[in-house]
Amino acid sequence: MTDPIAFYFDFASPYGYLASTQIDALAEKHGRAVDWRPIMLGAAMKVTGGQPLVQIPMRGDYSRRDMPRFARYLGVPFEFPPVMPILTLAAARAVYWCRDRDPELAHQLAKALFHAHFGEGRDIAQPEQVAEVAQTLNIDEQNLLQAVQAPEVKERLKAETGAAIELGVFGSPFFIVDGEPFWGADRLDQLDRWLESGGF
Amino acid sequence: MTDPIAFYFDFASPYGYLASTQIDALAEKHGRAVDWRPIMLGAAMKVTGGQPLVQIPMRGDYSRRDMPRFARYLGVPFEFPPVMPILTLAAARAVYWCRDRDPELAHQLAKALFHAHFGEGRDIAQPEQVAEVAQTLNIDEQNLLQAVQAPEVKERLKAETGAAIELGVFGSPFFIVDGEPFWGADRLDQLDRWLESGGF
Repeated sequence: MTDPIAFYFDFASPYGYLASTQIDALAEKHGRAVDWRPIMLGAAMKVTGGQPLVQIPMRGDYSRRDMPRFARYLGVPFEFPPVMPILTLAAARAVYWCRDRDPELAHQLAKALFHAHFGEGRDIAQPEQVAEVAQTLNIDEQNLLQAVQAPEVKERLKAETGAAIELGVFGSPFFIVDGEPFWGADRLDQLDRWLESGGF
Repeated sequence: MTDPIAFYFDFASPYGYLASTQIDALAEKHGRAVDWRPIMLGAAMKVTGGQPLVQIPMRGDYSRRDMPRFARYLGVPFEFPPVMPILTLAAARAVYWCRDRDPELAHQLAKALFHAHFGEGRDIAQPEQVAEVAQTLNIDEQNLLQAVQAPEVKERLKAETGAAIELGVFGSPFFIVDGEPFWGADRLDQLDRWLESGGF
């Protein structure tokens, strides 16, 4: 039995979204599961001194061209959300809350949230909007709205983010497979080869 | 007759080196020439607020793992130079000086300098080391050493760098094909598809 691929992401990350449309099929090809772990990328950026891509001179303009082009390259939908980047506390907390009850449902919720935000351009910053997406998966809206304000769920996300940073995670998407780190939607080809050949 | 692919790079850029090992074959596949244009990336970083990758917390450590791994993925040699990043004024000036006399020789010189720095791990910061690499292409060492101190050659590199920044170039490698920008060795696949299908 092989270990799952750890997939770290922030729901505000467009390249995280692009990777979210690819990683399950890639993993399945190699008989691997995927462990979807939302984090708060802002905490890692405090360590690296990074800032949101779209706000950087020149790079921001380029990235606004690159993101939809990369999506067309992959053949997946892409819509710019009204605000970028958004705060993703509610979305990430909802996934961990759900995960402790039903890991596969949490996985579906994470995919649905990413799709809502970047596939349909919806703003998922507000808990109510997260709940609306969750409701399509028959997750109770009121339970979710309470959960994302619960101290233990808040702490859980903090702890998960801290643990990810400890492992060297500083970007989104970020993958760790058998201890080997891969950063970026543009490392999926290399991750694929790595799994195929057991390293290179 | 189609326009050449403009290939912007800084000799201090490891991902620029990786791209330098691939771009000629990629372009030839599509009947394109490549216009190799060294720039001083530091000038662009003043605009973007960027800093040398290897000096960034967490990202630096990751990049030191990613660079040789990417090289193995491509099947090209990679050796860490003793100092990273180096100042590449002499190397870049030498290429422009050579280019006005013999564009194909300038192309060979640029490839040889990149290979010396990242394929063999040699320090090409000093003009004497640039001249040594050039000498293997039968470029006169003394002429080159004089040229890289000539005011008009210095100005030429400044002007080329300024013109690149005006075009939106902020990283290395950076490609522009028919007005479309691609940044990164990890966009070569998309550049390939773009040339194949005339856009996507």
